[in-house]
Amino acid sequence: MQVKIDALQTLLGSATLSCSQAQADVQPQFLSADASDPQVIGWMQGSPPAPEKVVGFSSILQFPQTRWSFSHLRELLPSVQVARGKGAASPLPRAEREDIDALVFTPLGSDRTMTWEQSLKANYTDGILILHRGQVVYERYFGALTDQGQHIAMSVTKSFIGTLGAMLVEEGSIDPQAKVSHYVLELKDSAFGDATVRQVMDMTVGVRYSEDYADPKAEIWEYLRAAHMTPRPEGYAGATTVTEYLMKLRKEGEHGQAFAYKTVNTDVLSWVIQRATGKPIAVNLQERIWSKLGAEQDAYLIVDEVGTAFTGGGFNTSLRDLARFSEMMRLGGKFNGQQIVPKSVIADIRGGASQQDFAKAGYELLPNWSYRDMWWVSHDTHGVYSARGLHGQSMYIDPKAKMVIVRYASHPLARSSNFDPTTLPAYRAVANHLMANSL
Amino acid sequence: MQVKIDALQTLLGSATLSCSQAQADVQPQFLSADASDPQVIGWMQGSPPAPEKVVGFSSILQFPQTRWSFSHLRELLPSVQVARGKGAASPLPRAEREDIDALVFTPLGSDRTMTWEQSLKANYTDGILILHRGQVVYERYFGALTDQGQHIAMSVTKSFIGTLGAMLVEEGSIDPQAKVSHYVLELKDSAFGDATVRQVMDMTVGVRYSEDYADPKAEIWEYLRAAHMTPRPEGYAGATTVTEYLMKLRKEGEHGQAFAYKTVNTDVLSWVIQRATGKPIAVNLQERIWSKLGAEQDAYLIVDEVGTAFTGGGFNTSLRDLARFSEMMRLGGKFNGQQIVPKSVIADIRGGASQQDFAKAGYELLPNWSYRDMWWVSHDTHGVYSARGLHGQSMYIDPKAKMVIVRYASHPLARSSNFDPTTLPAYRAVANHLMANSL
Repeated sequence: MQVKIDALQTLLGSATLSCSQAQADVQPQFLSADASDPQVIGWMQGSPPAPEKVVGFSSILQFPQTRWSFSHLRELLPSVQVARGKGAASPLPRAEREDIDALVFTPLGSDRTMTWEQSLKANYTDGILILHRGQVVYERYFGALTDQGQHIAMSVTKSFIGTLGAMLVEEGSIDPQAKVSHYVLELKDSAFGDATVRQVMDMTVGVRYSEDYADPKAEIWEYLRAAHMTPRPEGYAGATTVTEYLMKLRKEGEHGQAFAYKTVNTDVLSWVIQRATGKPIAVNLQERIWSKLGAEQDAYLIVDEVGTAFTGGGFNTSLRDLARFSEMMRLGGKFNGQQIVPKSVIADIRGGASQQDFAKAGYELLPNWSYRDMWWVSHDTHGVYSARGLHGQSMYIDPKAKMVIVRYASHPLARSSNFDPTTLPAYRAVANHLMANSL
Repeated sequence: MQVKIDALQTLLGSATLSCSQAQADVQPQFLSADASDPQVIGWMQGSPPAPEKVVGFSSILQFPQTRWSFSHLRELLPSVQVARGKGAASPLPRAEREDIDALVFTPLGSDRTMTWEQSLKANYTDGILILHRGQVVYERYFGALTDQGQHIAMSVTKSFIGTLGAMLVEEGSIDPQAKVSHYVLELKDSAFGDATVRQVMDMTVGVRYSEDYADPKAEIWEYLRAAHMTPRPEGYAGATTVTEYLMKLRKEGEHGQAFAYKTVNTDVLSWVIQRATGKPIAVNLQERIWSKLGAEQDAYLIVDEVGTAFTGGGFNTSLRDLARFSEMMRLGGKFNGQQIVPKSVIADIRGGASQQDFAKAGYELLPNWSYRDMWWVSHDTHGVYSARGLHGQSMYIDPKAKMVIVRYASHPLARSSNFDPTTLPAYRAVANHLMANSL
């Protein structure tokens, strides 16, 4: 049961649960990264695949099928293109280093060390790329992902939407102090009606909405079914679209009092962005970001039955293009010869939000962090900020080390507490190593 | 009723019906091209679109929704990427001419002339591009298609698969005289079991399979539902995958006696190709053709519930990339600095097949034509050969005029007899004009 529950946290930030244990809680019953390698299992191989090797609509979120499906989502669900445009890809110069695999670090809460190379299997990495001073110093793929494929970004998607939102605030198209209902009248009677756009962007909205997968009555289930990410039971009478679902949510408590990570905020922000610009979110992403990056591949968003993109977790990109976006952020928004995101927006994100509000959410592994414009901000000595998605998706930007790490993964467990211990200290070890040993 | 029936011929060559009338039989009840313009109607506009503006799974094939859906199929159905690769797009030099719009021709079976420009609305063109001596002399988009979008190729897909098949025959990976069951044992007891691969490639297989949409018991309905292109009725007990459906088809008459255009042949050929190469058809297309063309966009194939591509009609490309492929064919297989398709394969296609066998199928508008390697071969004085898809999809290659015309469309009626009268003589008029008036 835990497997199913945890797998279904997929795509929907579950970080609402505080972490009472620092060590990864991988159960022994899970196949290892090697044993669950989708090429080894043979998912979807053969013409047609044998019935027991099929990954279908109903098994998208089940481990170990996830080790294949996370790299092949468009083959199972409708999707909308986010086009790269037609220019040449922006260069990603290579200066690969052989000294990273052997780096040693101590996982959080552990008393035994681990090498970087070991960590990649411990946390079910599908692909990882490190940029240092803009050069690719490390790039590896495992399982079903290749440098030509796209992987679901899960809640890393949120940071793209938050950045878009902050850009529109900066240009004056969105007033962050305005009520959500000013832009989306349909949300007037919902929990979001009297919340400000800023409260949505920083996720301090008081809304009765649970992502507790152990509770069959939790709101999360209807959300997933509304987005058509999971099958609907016979006689299903719930919402059938993302926007219909958002309208049903009711207020609980006060807005602006505490950070409460709830995926629905991102789809509300997307709705605001679409109304403010008059364009679908896919077009906004394409015109304002993707086509300017010099991406080497198109990206795509999963859509519901009426074409509304699921922006809480439905963006899919190549790993290298995720690195380009992260590097653009590190460089203050300037990349590929142009200012893509205003410098002030990057500064706003890096500045973070209230650490006090954040502390109320009880993330033991993220002391003193905050959440701003849908980015996770560490407030540490390196100025690290990050985009984080279930099962191990990540953009990790370390300004002091001039380093960016992007990672796609398919960990059997969804919650970050399962892979933060083998990623956060590993990333810091690489940063320190690169700073001390620049070639 | 006729609207629905004809619209459902979509994606599945219906050219089995002979044409008793040469003139287009557009019924007055159809909206004109201007009135059915998807931007004017507002399909899928708004966030979310109003209920009456939604194009959903169940309306994919209904006119006038088709004017939007044909350019947005991946937003409604699962699809698999056919990647362009990462190089620069191959150049398509431009030498646009202003003298084409005013060209006058006489539609087949008509006694009144029409201008080229008028023809584009008469036959519901979504996009059309003319190459002369490798230069873009004309390019126009209408409705929901742009130069950044992809459009469904319908049965033009078949010519890609036939070309792949002929390439594998040429390299010795497929024996065209072998029985289909030699490659696909699962088809042993089906109509295709004792047919040769060559008979499949040239569609002279005797199989009980009807694409008569007026007959609710016609095999076509189960085929569509198996491919998951149309909703399944409650209690549906038919095939649920493309390959399962193909296995159910039974022999009728003798193989090799007459041309009989039946879409299922293409999916059988794809199955043979997949078994001969050990790779999915999308990978074959990508590795052998798409990534070599210097395509400017990825393409995609619609897939069924177990990932089998629907190759009878499910390929989607940009118009310019369709032009690149056609130009490669015109140039004897050499394009973008490499021999992509062997010259002998192009010769085999251009040589055509038995005109006598073809004549038995009764295409009054295609006198003396034949069908080879899933291409339509005119045997006319220009050596024209063509890929043809329902509702007006086309690659038209005129070797003598050194001209290629590619067209995507969303005509309300599926059968070629509805738009051949305003396209075939128009194409010839352009060819003659370009030959006589080269700049």
